[in-house]
Amino acid sequence: MNGADVLCDVLLANGVNVCFANPGTSEMHFVAALDRKPQMRCVLGLFEGVVTGAADGYARMTDRPAATLLHTGPGLANGLANMHNARRARVPMINIVGDHASYHLPLDAPLTSDIEGLAAPMSNWVHRIAGPADIAPAAQAAFRASLTPPGVTTLILPADAAWGDASPLRSAKVVLAPTPAIDMDGVRKIAEAVRAAPGRVGMVLRGLAAREGALEIAGQISAASGARLFSEVLIARMQRGRGRVAPTRIPYPIDAARTLLDDVDVLILVGAKEPVAFFAYPGKPGRLVRDGCAVVTLAAHGEDLKAALAALRDELGIKPSQPVSVASAFPDEPTPRGRLTDDAVALSVARKLPENAIVCDEAVTSARRYFALSAFAAPHDYMMGTGGSIGGGIPMATGAAIACPGRKVVNLEADGSGMYTVQGLWTQAREKLDVVTIVFSNRNYAILHGEMRNVGVNAIGENARRMLDLDQPALDWVSLANGMGVEAARADTCERLDALLDSALSRPGPFLIEAVI
Amino acid sequence: MNGADVLCDVLLANGVNVCFANPGTSEMHFVAALDRKPQMRCVLGLFEGVVTGAADGYARMTDRPAATLLHTGPGLANGLANMHNARRARVPMINIVGDHASYHLPLDAPLTSDIEGLAAPMSNWVHRIAGPADIAPAAQAAFRASLTPPGVTTLILPADAAWGDASPLRSAKVVLAPTPAIDMDGVRKIAEAVRAAPGRVGMVLRGLAAREGALEIAGQISAASGARLFSEVLIARMQRGRGRVAPTRIPYPIDAARTLLDDVDVLILVGAKEPVAFFAYPGKPGRLVRDGCAVVTLAAHGEDLKAALAALRDELGIKPSQPVSVASAFPDEPTPRGRLTDDAVALSVARKLPENAIVCDEAVTSARRYFALSAFAAPHDYMMGTGGSIGGGIPMATGAAIACPGRKVVNLEADGSGMYTVQGLWTQAREKLDVVTIVFSNRNYAILHGEMRNVGVNAIGENARRMLDLDQPALDWVSLANGMGVEAARADTCERLDALLDSALSRPGPFLIEAVI
Repeated sequence: MNGADVLCDVLLANGVNVCFANPGTSEMHFVAALDRKPQMRCVLGLFEGVVTGAADGYARMTDRPAATLLHTGPGLANGLANMHNARRARVPMINIVGDHASYHLPLDAPLTSDIEGLAAPMSNWVHRIAGPADIAPAAQAAFRASLTPPGVTTLILPADAAWGDASPLRSAKVVLAPTPAIDMDGVRKIAEAVRAAPGRVGMVLRGLAAREGALEIAGQISAASGARLFSEVLIARMQRGRGRVAPTRIPYPIDAARTLLDDVDVLILVGAKEPVAFFAYPGKPGRLVRDGCAVVTLAAHGEDLKAALAALRDELGIKPSQPVSVASAFPDEPTPRGRLTDDAVALSVARKLPENAIVCDEAVTSARRYFALSAFAAPHDYMMGTGGSIGGGIPMATGAAIACPGRKVVNLEADGSGMYTVQGLWTQAREKLDVVTIVFSNRNYAILHGEMRNVGVNAIGENARRMLDLDQPALDWVSLANGMGVEAARADTCERLDALLDSALSRPGPFLIEAVI
Repeated sequence: MNGADVLCDVLLANGVNVCFANPGTSEMHFVAALDRKPQMRCVLGLFEGVVTGAADGYARMTDRPAATLLHTGPGLANGLANMHNARRARVPMINIVGDHASYHLPLDAPLTSDIEGLAAPMSNWVHRIAGPADIAPAAQAAFRASLTPPGVTTLILPADAAWGDASPLRSAKVVLAPTPAIDMDGVRKIAEAVRAAPGRVGMVLRGLAAREGALEIAGQISAASGARLFSEVLIARMQRGRGRVAPTRIPYPIDAARTLLDDVDVLILVGAKEPVAFFAYPGKPGRLVRDGCAVVTLAAHGEDLKAALAALRDELGIKPSQPVSVASAFPDEPTPRGRLTDDAVALSVARKLPENAIVCDEAVTSARRYFALSAFAAPHDYMMGTGGSIGGGIPMATGAAIACPGRKVVNLEADGSGMYTVQGLWTQAREKLDVVTIVFSNRNYAILHGEMRNVGVNAIGENARRMLDLDQPALDWVSLANGMGVEAARADTCERLDALLDSALSRPGPFLIEAVI
């Protein structure tokens, strides 16, 4: 057996049984090894941004790493933007980047590049495999690093390490370190701070603190103490919908976020970082809490967030039977008719969402209303791109569907963002995934028109228009989807959207709706 | 005026008047400044790989840098693969990467990343602008670095440098250092070596040595001395066709390349590097010349390659009137009929190519025959992806068409490679570019099937097949092109291809032909 076989064995022994891939020549021995392992599901992406974005979506839904297979520096480079999103989502991922045989590197052949240098900015852990004997320990270390705490790892696999002779492993399974114990001193101090500032406490929930059970406990703390619950502006994953506790999302605009947090004296972070402005603007602050607000960490990413919340609840003397406030019925609102608007799409999706669906929201400006409405929708998982790098949506939906067969994935997608990794639609067709993509076709980078106004430009000229608008020609999303084997249709009225959604949500396989707004 | 205005002024004063762009929020002041400069042509790409690949194509045809506008680390990351190709092509390019305001970086907002770290592997020069006062010198340094010698430069533009107050420049124009003088001692030594090894000399021509005039001189040296002329396997740009001296391309397969170079005692590099194997294979050598072959440099990239060739010619006592051997009439060959093959496409394109066309060849395995045939075609410029990173073709054709209005661009494109940056078709439609794209639709990564055989795997299984084949579903390139506003048609017979080519080559604007092979 060769090094590539050992790598496959270590991955499979640790439950890494999905490999999103776009291979090249230097990975042929690894491809041949994967070919000998039918228990590994290999999923081809026609561009590496699809590969890493799908691994992100897969990890968000399973809390386990998928492997990716990328070809040398440029192949890695193409996957970096969605690795950035995954790193910011703090999900596990094991990127395997093939490289030239080690002795070939000094010749500086055309595909040679500094792979470590490229990987480092978007990885939490990088390692170059030294040779066949290093493959097993390196793969085990990568698996461990991907989960303690969850993060993006990159393993560089030289071709001669893959093709070199290697011995089978006696024990490929990795035993992970236990989750760190709760810092009870810290919990007591935070409980004291909560008691000292009644009605002026906020709590930012993220990661595993945004799952149903943890949200319930946070909701009990909120109900009993008056603490308000928040989520970061970009949400890696939140369990959402009727019967669940629904934190308020901190808004993207600085002024609105500052207003929301203005009366918070103590902000408690649960798996979160202190919220900051997405971008700087002349004369505006970067921090979103006001000066004097105490920002304290109850538990950090990688710690047991749910147990920490439970400890805080107990410390505050709140009973596990404490009732919580949850959304129930949909707000009474007339069904929109006639010409389609972005808000009408959001309302229609929220109302029609099937139970246990997964919503990937990369609609940027267009689905802003959806998040508020989603509190009233059927229970579902909600995810966004987390690093601000667009092009995550279609791949993330693809990976989520691979992770969760039997659940419907709804991808709310902006036209500008969708074009970045449009190739992912082909993977959805190839794998027959249950993904309904709704493209908000507004034919411009709407967020940038807003940002031009933010920098004081109200009337834009020809050059700016040609950089911010996606018209001339308009994209035809139905043709694009059909070209990749995905059925699609266009809606420009609310009635047509409703009919298409009913049909798309009730049939298996991928479907794309171009919502002309 | 602000820093962004000064940056535009420096670019324009130095003839950089095309900006391929995909902006984001941190670049809004730069977009606003570009909006005040109608003399700057701003070209939107719907993905950054299109942006940098177009700048590569533009530079190859003009020998001047275009600017690119990229949004923070992830935007740069998306452009890196084609920056890698450009760096390997050694063309000038000025990438402008917007970043957060400098004081915002410590907050580690979601889009924060190590931009220098990302840029360095694919750039010859990287600089972060320190503040508004640094913009003019930094932009001038970037322009200088992009041309002496030609290479890829990356300028990081913090938002607060762009929006900060800056003074207008008295003199924005850069005076470039003169090209280094010819090393006559070196020329004499090489002449001596040529005389000492009659019939056993090879010469590798690249860069400016592969333009018509330099090729002519190399052809004179070849005709008089028996030296053989070669090009590297991946050609950044070569002037090619009837009446021009036609070097032999060093083949991609190691054995064929070694056989070709086996009787070369002296290999003279003219703007080239020593040829090496593209990849390493177990038991095969990495160098392509045999041991004992002397590899000498007549002139390096950035030096005056044509003058060096002329000096060598003179030193060898060869007259400027020395006749050369050039291809004239097309080889006699029957016109293919019936079912289309890749060779039939190559022959049809070579025969029908209009005078002064530009051919971008990213057809990988499918257009292998084209290069040999191109010696007999109408005079044209020929270019390939040079770094082995696929996804360069459609963007390169786009940039070449922007650079050379009035010339027809023919893009020979593989289906696997074309999907990487398929978004470039939209830019061709938006800019109404004269590009005819011919997609060789073989529905697999054919080169990788060959490479699997090279590593000894002759029968492939389900996992490998699913990573190497592009079928299930087949891509419909006509739909994809139409979806981006490019007219398109499909050919599966030679007759149909001929008719489509006649029509596409005689009409303005972009057209795509899906050649089903």
